[in-house]
Amino acid sequence: MMLMTALSGNSAPIDPARFAVILARPENPENIGLAARAMKNTGFSDLRVVKKGRLPAKAAKTAVHAADILAAASVLPDLDAAVADCGAVFAATARIRSVVRVLALSEAVPMMLALPPVTRVGLLFGNERTGLTGDELRRANYVFTIPQAGPQPSYNLGGAVLLTLFALFTAAGAPRPAADPPLLRGEQEEVIRLILRKLEEKRFVHGGNREHVADIMHDLLGRMAITAKDRRFLLALFTKGVDLKEP
Amino acid sequence: MMLMTALSGNSAPIDPARFAVILARPENPENIGLAARAMKNTGFSDLRVVKKGRLPAKAAKTAVHAADILAAASVLPDLDAAVADCGAVFAATARIRSVVRVLALSEAVPMMLALPPVTRVGLLFGNERTGLTGDELRRANYVFTIPQAGPQPSYNLGGAVLLTLFALFTAAGAPRPAADPPLLRGEQEEVIRLILRKLEEKRFVHGGNREHVADIMHDLLGRMAITAKDRRFLLALFTKGVDLKEP
Repeated sequence: MMLMTALSGNSAPIDPARFAVILARPENPENIGLAARAMKNTGFSDLRVVKKGRLPAKAAKTAVHAADILAAASVLPDLDAAVADCGAVFAATARIRSVVRVLALSEAVPMMLALPPVTRVGLLFGNERTGLTGDELRRANYVFTIPQAGPQPSYNLGGAVLLTLFALFTAAGAPRPAADPPLLRGEQEEVIRLILRKLEEKRFVHGGNREHVADIMHDLLGRMAITAKDRRFLLALFTKGVDLKEP
Repeated sequence: MMLMTALSGNSAPIDPARFAVILARPENPENIGLAARAMKNTGFSDLRVVKKGRLPAKAAKTAVHAADILAAASVLPDLDAAVADCGAVFAATARIRSVVRVLALSEAVPMMLALPPVTRVGLLFGNERTGLTGDELRRANYVFTIPQAGPQPSYNLGGAVLLTLFALFTAAGAPRPAADPPLLRGEQEEVIRLILRKLEEKRFVHGGNREHVADIMHDLLGRMAITAKDRRFLLALFTKGVDLKEP
């Protein structure tokens, strides 16, 4: 399944089914739900939780519109089982260690996307308080960190998952809302000319200020980069709506 | 105050003090705390909450290491007061309306950064359930949306604040962890040569496979882009640690 988007424009040519979000020993059920919601927001679906027992029922509270992701999530007793089918695991850390090379998120994302299409990619996030242990980090091929303004606090678990998935989702060009294109420049000029003529009829514009008002009107409507819809509104406004007194 | 970062590399040349995060009628105290934490993560500090009464005490629970931001937050009875000192207000919406031009977050950020340095910029986020009302949206100069994979769910309030601030924080080049540079290519060759010689002494490499093993070794160590630290480790490993039998 390729990512679909409610917005027009480019959609990212990545296959979200290749990516698994792996939460190691999450403590707070709300973070499991927030991770599921972030996955739904960005089009991912494979959630794996490393913990004993079952998913806590409270996770559903924050998994708004993402109950299907929680329902399909795997709960695994150990990390080895969670990464077994992954060809590459990227582990998120807030701590920069001297032993391992730590990538910035912005460096890690292109590496994820450069992997062969058959490779399943695990995105590994640690416990809220402890982060990933050394033993857990050794299950990863790469370690990345999400830049932050200062040493404290780290991003909360749900936020780290969201920032990572959003970076992946938008990596190949974020979808953008459809925007009406501006009129052609000649058409924009025509609108300005019509407005200026109307203002002249109303004696707002006269010989003494014509150049000045024309400059201002070009600046103002120029910055608006007016569309066909704007033109309809502006012409109606200046034809019928504006009852200007002589200045 | 310019953004400082715990990581080396470029730091974003934006002045976070120019930006105010404005939450209109937030319902869930935890989202106020998450917004404060996201601000701390990304270096922003001016939080304004539009609501009756005082900040709910429960907001502190999720404002990890961001109590100072909550303590300094303004609580204002109406939105007009919250935006009064802003020269430009950018409102986040999950709904694309036909009347107003909606920017993608990736379009809105450069516009924020292009504003004159004296201009205070308001980042406006609506209520969790209703979003911003039409009346609230009219207090904004620009409306932006954060791209998502499908129509539902929208990003949760804390997440929308986090994604917006992170985009601003990293707009001028995300800070990256310091990385040891790879050795010069000639030095890398020297390491490979030493290792191959050692393997030859141990009869792992011989006339019949020399070219083949050299190719593999160049590919493997090439992809590793070895650093000075890697060299120390590899040479120690192949000099002392590896007890290879003849294949």
